[in-house]
Amino acid sequence: MRNLTQDNITQAVIARFADTPDPRLKEIVTSLVQHLHAFARDVKLTEAEWFQGIEFLTRVGHITDDKRQEFILLSDTLGLSMLTVAMNQEKPQGCTEATVFGPFFVENAPSFDLGDDVSNGAPGIPCLVRGAIRGINGEPVPGAEIQVWQADAQGKYDMQYESHEHKARGVLHADGKGHYHFRSILAEAYPIPDDGPVGDMLRATKRHPWRPAHLHFMITAPGYERLITHVFRNGDSYLDSDAVFGVRQSLIADWVQQPDGNYLVEYDFVLNPERA
Amino acid sequence: MRNLTQDNITQAVIARFADTPDPRLKEIVTSLVQHLHAFARDVKLTEAEWFQGIEFLTRVGHITDDKRQEFILLSDTLGLSMLTVAMNQEKPQGCTEATVFGPFFVENAPSFDLGDDVSNGAPGIPCLVRGAIRGINGEPVPGAEIQVWQADAQGKYDMQYESHEHKARGVLHADGKGHYHFRSILAEAYPIPDDGPVGDMLRATKRHPWRPAHLHFMITAPGYERLITHVFRNGDSYLDSDAVFGVRQSLIADWVQQPDGNYLVEYDFVLNPERA
Repeated sequence: MRNLTQDNITQAVIARFADTPDPRLKEIVTSLVQHLHAFARDVKLTEAEWFQGIEFLTRVGHITDDKRQEFILLSDTLGLSMLTVAMNQEKPQGCTEATVFGPFFVENAPSFDLGDDVSNGAPGIPCLVRGAIRGINGEPVPGAEIQVWQADAQGKYDMQYESHEHKARGVLHADGKGHYHFRSILAEAYPIPDDGPVGDMLRATKRHPWRPAHLHFMITAPGYERLITHVFRNGDSYLDSDAVFGVRQSLIADWVQQPDGNYLVEYDFVLNPERA
Repeated sequence: MRNLTQDNITQAVIARFADTPDPRLKEIVTSLVQHLHAFARDVKLTEAEWFQGIEFLTRVGHITDDKRQEFILLSDTLGLSMLTVAMNQEKPQGCTEATVFGPFFVENAPSFDLGDDVSNGAPGIPCLVRGAIRGINGEPVPGAEIQVWQADAQGKYDMQYESHEHKARGVLHADGKGHYHFRSILAEAYPIPDDGPVGDMLRATKRHPWRPAHLHFMITAPGYERLITHVFRNGDSYLDSDAVFGVRQSLIADWVQQPDGNYLVEYDFVLNPERA
């Protein structure tokens, strides 16, 4: 192929992918090239803007390490993460809805027994979290694995600190009736990390970086689909403008202050049976 | 915005960019979100595929440094670079056509006098390069700055070696009649760096990484548009399947072997007057 022009180059690039052995990969790269080129054509991207894009992505790549995932943050703030969740997590009425995974999950979080305090000294007002894990027909899910993670009163996850200590995250298992309870700290609204290129993008577009207060949950049990979701704190002023578009009405719960000043939140999860 | 679904999230994300002060940035992010979401929706991207995409871009970011630009390589191999050039470099008939910049340009290349050997010891068969720089009306462009860079007989640019020495690249100036000549080495076909994620992409899609033999030129002169282009070597077997889609028929020239075994290539460049 010689003499490619803005009118024939897209088909020429797609043709170059014609021998891709995996049909799904072929479908994905073909669509990616079409949409990437359509974007460039739509805005008539200049060479200077193209180079700014290269530099932006380079910065995203260079700030990303084993504790910070700026590409996920970029996907989250462009709504791509939530779109992907929404497309793949359509569940029957009555199941707990899913939301974005976020960049702050870690493998190998510490294990706790029911009733333990997972905060491990993270700053915040004490909070008791409890509820049940059920299936769609109301059946308890005994022993379901519950991974929980959250930000502290300073709006930071443990991995955002210099120390590598796990705080305000852990793995628990529901009891024989599918019930769980653990202690942690009050969830508070926080800004996503905005000292990198994604923060620059938010500032340049006059978007705020805040997420409404929430607890992250990942719940796994044999015979059920894995559920990745948040429970959001009712009354938070960012519920309608989450920087990563993750809020669903059904995931909002009341954090109730108790006579001793501490908080209690109760939330029951309903899992979807595994699809064949 | 709560309860975003796959049907309404794109509009919600675009609305979030509504206050972007720079109208061009607003146009670009709006179009980017539309096309990014359309891509994900078109292929119904799964969460596992989304995560593979995050991991791929992370690898692209981590292999990129001051000597290797994998994002440019990715843009080149997806045809985005050539599309951007084609959209922005429409020139009047008779002007030398532009092609991709590529990832191997460096600032501050060494200066040479006309007739010098720019190879600086890079391995390859000696080659004389000469021609003229003219404007669209045939007028000579005296003193035009000529930056040239190329791969060596092993298919590597100087920056791909451990040594930081400049080889087979340099800056020269045309003489008072707009003529230039310098010595270098024979241009040879070479594979783009394929030991990173872009190489993995090419292998997974059964694409070869080869570029037809070429010399890079960047020519700058007051009153004229800067020209970034290549001269390709006639007869190369990759002229019809350049891995980065950069070949134009008008940029192909004969490298002619001389009685002493060395080569000669002659090419005249025609610059476009600067647009107002």
